[in-house]
Amino acid sequence: MYGIFSDEGSAPRVGYKVGNQILDLTVAFNLGVFADVLPHIDSVFARPTLNDFMALGSVTCRAITQQIRAYLQTEEAQSGVFHELLFVPLANATLHLPIEIGDYTDFYAGIHHAENVGRIFRPNGDPLLPNYKHMPVAYHGRASSIVVSGTPIKRPSGQFLRGDDVVFGPTQALDFELELGLIIGRHSAMGEPVSVADAEDYIFGVVLFNDWSARDIQRWEYQPLGPFLGKNFGSSMSAWVVPFADLGPFRVAGPVQDPMPLPYLQTHQPGHFDLPLTVSLNNTVISESNARFLYWSFAQMIAHHTVNGCNLNVGDVLATGTISGPTPDQYGSLLELTGNGTQPLKLPDSTEMTFLRDGDTVTMQSRTAANDMVLELGDVTGRIA
Amino acid sequence: MYGIFSDEGSAPRVGYKVGNQILDLTVAFNLGVFADVLPHIDSVFARPTLNDFMALGSVTCRAITQQIRAYLQTEEAQSGVFHELLFVPLANATLHLPIEIGDYTDFYAGIHHAENVGRIFRPNGDPLLPNYKHMPVAYHGRASSIVVSGTPIKRPSGQFLRGDDVVFGPTQALDFELELGLIIGRHSAMGEPVSVADAEDYIFGVVLFNDWSARDIQRWEYQPLGPFLGKNFGSSMSAWVVPFADLGPFRVAGPVQDPMPLPYLQTHQPGHFDLPLTVSLNNTVISESNARFLYWSFAQMIAHHTVNGCNLNVGDVLATGTISGPTPDQYGSLLELTGNGTQPLKLPDSTEMTFLRDGDTVTMQSRTAANDMVLELGDVTGRIA
Repeated sequence: MYGIFSDEGSAPRVGYKVGNQILDLTVAFNLGVFADVLPHIDSVFARPTLNDFMALGSVTCRAITQQIRAYLQTEEAQSGVFHELLFVPLANATLHLPIEIGDYTDFYAGIHHAENVGRIFRPNGDPLLPNYKHMPVAYHGRASSIVVSGTPIKRPSGQFLRGDDVVFGPTQALDFELELGLIIGRHSAMGEPVSVADAEDYIFGVVLFNDWSARDIQRWEYQPLGPFLGKNFGSSMSAWVVPFADLGPFRVAGPVQDPMPLPYLQTHQPGHFDLPLTVSLNNTVISESNARFLYWSFAQMIAHHTVNGCNLNVGDVLATGTISGPTPDQYGSLLELTGNGTQPLKLPDSTEMTFLRDGDTVTMQSRTAANDMVLELGDVTGRIA
Repeated sequence: MYGIFSDEGSAPRVGYKVGNQILDLTVAFNLGVFADVLPHIDSVFARPTLNDFMALGSVTCRAITQQIRAYLQTEEAQSGVFHELLFVPLANATLHLPIEIGDYTDFYAGIHHAENVGRIFRPNGDPLLPNYKHMPVAYHGRASSIVVSGTPIKRPSGQFLRGDDVVFGPTQALDFELELGLIIGRHSAMGEPVSVADAEDYIFGVVLFNDWSARDIQRWEYQPLGPFLGKNFGSSMSAWVVPFADLGPFRVAGPVQDPMPLPYLQTHQPGHFDLPLTVSLNNTVISESNARFLYWSFAQMIAHHTVNGCNLNVGDVLATGTISGPTPDQYGSLLELTGNGTQPLKLPDSTEMTFLRDGDTVTMQSRTAANDMVLELGDVTGRIA
């Protein structure tokens, strides 16, 4: 996993996480580890974000990842004279937001979440709106307030309804949303759609993403233009980005899509991924979901996003929307887990809760294995300040 | 007005528009014109965007503007030996997007537009939704596809409804939206609201802004999360940014706000501006509106945007939303001017039109005068390719 770290007041730079250590890629670069792949004088690793590295393109980035993994097996890396220079203990490092984020888009591709929300907010209607199975519905979010895992989140204040009164104050319905974030590593030109077949090549890597939400603020403001202050006070992402190619062994078919989507969204290769996802509240697991519950694939999200000519830039973040499973223990938000606050969650200390309380810590994790491959995404954690 | 220009293959840099000439601020800087205000070795003018200049802060930026205006009166500027070096004819210059845009937010602060849209889409309900007079409703837009005035706009394709069928093709309802854009010149910290009293200090300057819209795509996609592909294929802004202080002589009181907004939105100084705005289609004026028709002031937009702790960055763009007046000749979009395509617009060549046709050019302008002050905003123009 790639990320940006600093230690002892040094400048932020690119590192590769190996267990409890960070391989300092600026040191590896200077030792000539990448001489075959990166014959440049200038190191893309001595930068405060991954953007220049990602912009090298998927072929070069994959070659670098392979080179790193091969190098980690060498004696030089494992016990050589440079060992202390090459590795920084994770415990001594400060982790930074790994990406200079361009635009941030949030999809709504978790169909069980969309149905649950529909049932809560429109109890008498069809839980899904008519467009849902025709397109990966999405909206633009706020890039400036995306923070790295571990950053405390301040409870936002805003307008909401209390009965029929419009009141102002700290949100009474602070929530998390369990999502994956795709980090875009390739530019697309304005006016040029990306085909669904080419779309995955635009993904550099994947993070866990918590789209913190203030439900009371959101509900009062969101008509007719969508969520705004109910979301843009903060979102958290992993410090570590897993290369997209690492997801390969976990590829599975998605749900049957009926109605059949329009041709620009049709794809024949499986585009979903079997990645278990957990949400913990103060170290107790309260939800166990899986990325395979998404209705739309990553490739379909990208093809839809660009079909009108909207351009992507290196550093854009596309989040999936909340990933809930079909059963209540798989719901990816407190809105769903508590029936919009009407069915409190019972905690192990035998207290009950509905929405987040000051001091609560929410952590999302993903760890899985298939054949001999272990895949772990970067954690995302945040405490309500 | 400030902008970014290049000529004869030179690097893009900061210029100041004076009639049909551009004052090259890198040359003025080297001549020592800003020695008192900018005692730095490094010039913020030799950059491809205005961001570093804006980041100097409102006091310094105002001093520089004054220095430029004083210098323009000097003999050195008017006829000195450096005259040819100092000025580039506008006709010889290429103009660039003046800002490296961070986040782009689009408000909905034009109340007549909101009412017209409400009447068209919800003919049996109240034209305004319940939240409209309580908050400046807004959504996040796409920054990557904001282009400089003059850039051709490609007609987007997408999904829309034809009768009950979901079809795919080029939009049949391509529209413009007449807006102002505020260019943010000051950073605010995450978690720290900007008060309505301080808010205007965060505005570096103002541009005209055309938020191109595909109404058929927008209508099918926008529930429940707001506009996405119906908007993000392109927005156009002026090449030239007018310093916010220049709007001072045109300050007027806005409409009476009833109900009284919550305290964080209350302001006692007039925060609206009397700026006539015109839209021309292929050189024929089809709409004459005015910035004073906005319901919410710029200061209220900024106070609302940050009240939950959402942070602003230098280079963010806040657009007002479509500015329509109360009468049909003042409507700021074809959706309104043609009653959603049901009442074609009669053109001087005695043809009729509803939405934009390939080859149409839309130009927005603002020019006014008060007491000896003439104020002109930068034009924004675009042709449908």
